Amino acid sequence: MKPTAERVLDAAEDLFAAKGYNASSLGEVADRVGIRPPSLYNHFKNKEALYMAVLDRLLLKFNQPLRELMERPVTRDNVLAWQKKLTRLHIENPNMARLLQHAALSDSAHTKEFVERLFKPLFKDVTASGSEEVMIFKESREMLPWAIMSFNNLVMSYVTMAPLYESLLGKDLLGEESANKQVDFISILIQAMWSIDEEA
Amino acid sequence: MKPTAERVLDAAEDLFAAKGYNASSLGEVADRVGIRPPSLYNHFKNKEALYMAVLDRLLLKFNQPLRELMERPVTRDNVLAWQKKLTRLHIENPNMARLLQHAALSDSAHTKEFVERLFKPLFKDVTASGSEEVMIFKESREMLPWAIMSFNNLVMSYVTMAPLYESLLGKDLLGEESANKQVDFISILIQAMWSIDEEA
Repeated sequence: MKPTAERVLDAAEDLFAAKGYNASSLGEVADRVGIRPPSLYNHFKNKEALYMAVLDRLLLKFNQPLRELMERPVTRDNVLAWQKKLTRLHIENPNMARLLQHAALSDSAHTKEFVERLFKPLFKDVTASGSEEVMIFKESREMLPWAIMSFNNLVMSYVTMAPLYESLLGKDLLGEESANKQVDFISILIQAMWSIDEEA
Repeated sequence: MKPTAERVLDAAEDLFAAKGYNASSLGEVADRVGIRPPSLYNHFKNKEALYMAVLDRLLLKFNQPLRELMERPVTRDNVLAWQKKLTRLHIENPNMARLLQHAALSDSAHTKEFVERLFKPLFKDVTASGSEEVMIFKESREMLPWAIMSFNNLVMSYVTMAPLYESLLGKDLLGEESANKQVDFISILIQAMWSIDEEA
């Protein structure tokens, strides 16, 4: 069996992702792990520390693809590969998008964490890296943040909105078949953006 | 001053949108309106009835543009105008996207309402209407629901994720200048989808 601290992190991640930070309690986390609430304090000093540990673990995973992208020449193929990897990562780890969305909706205390540690590197590195080949909106650079924001939102809202579409489409949207379709769709959209810029 | 029932609806809409159905209480609604909690029951029999009344009022507003689109020839210009109207409607009434997102994240009891009353008409009418001119993914029709879902998510997640980007971009994302940019961006993306289909 996994060490207790890891099981606590797993349970807390699921709970925060389902209900958001404010509506979650340490008592519920302890229940899910099957330990007594005071035992939690052997591992995490309070709810805030537990949330931050959950976030640290997820950010380690989610910042990796961008680091890899930045280590190589920023070509169209590499950008597409990065977006595909990120799309799959969100589908395979849906709690990241859920935590982010809860923070944006009702947990303003944590929005700064996400901005500093996830979004800033994204906007800074992607904007700075813009080699001629991959750059979009060459003629109207003020639209570039809109493009980054929109693709980021598109990938995450697929995960957070999935329960609303699953009954309608009769599919498990986080399953393998749907994940492949979503990866294809994101690629098509990115290539469409490149092609419209060429025509302009 | 507005009639009490309307002030109750306004306050309830804001509260449900901020905290979600489960974390909201009738006592808080009464507090915000400045009436005693028992007075609420003169207008709505319980929390569920109040939530449904909030939803009814929003759906009336949000289903209108699709009805208008269906009354005219479905041309590219009309589809673009419809998407622009819908994008603005979401920005001007941000509570709709917030309610939907809360339902998808943690309030499974209400997902059916949104699916039946908002999403089904969207997928049914848009798919059926597909005149040759506006149709995308002519050669791979199984991608069409993905396109509808993605554009729908894109428009709504702009609203629900706004608090996370506002500090980063230093802009009020629900203000007029940003709204215009978002409308432009959605138009560019839709036109990009049309142009890639023509090349295929």
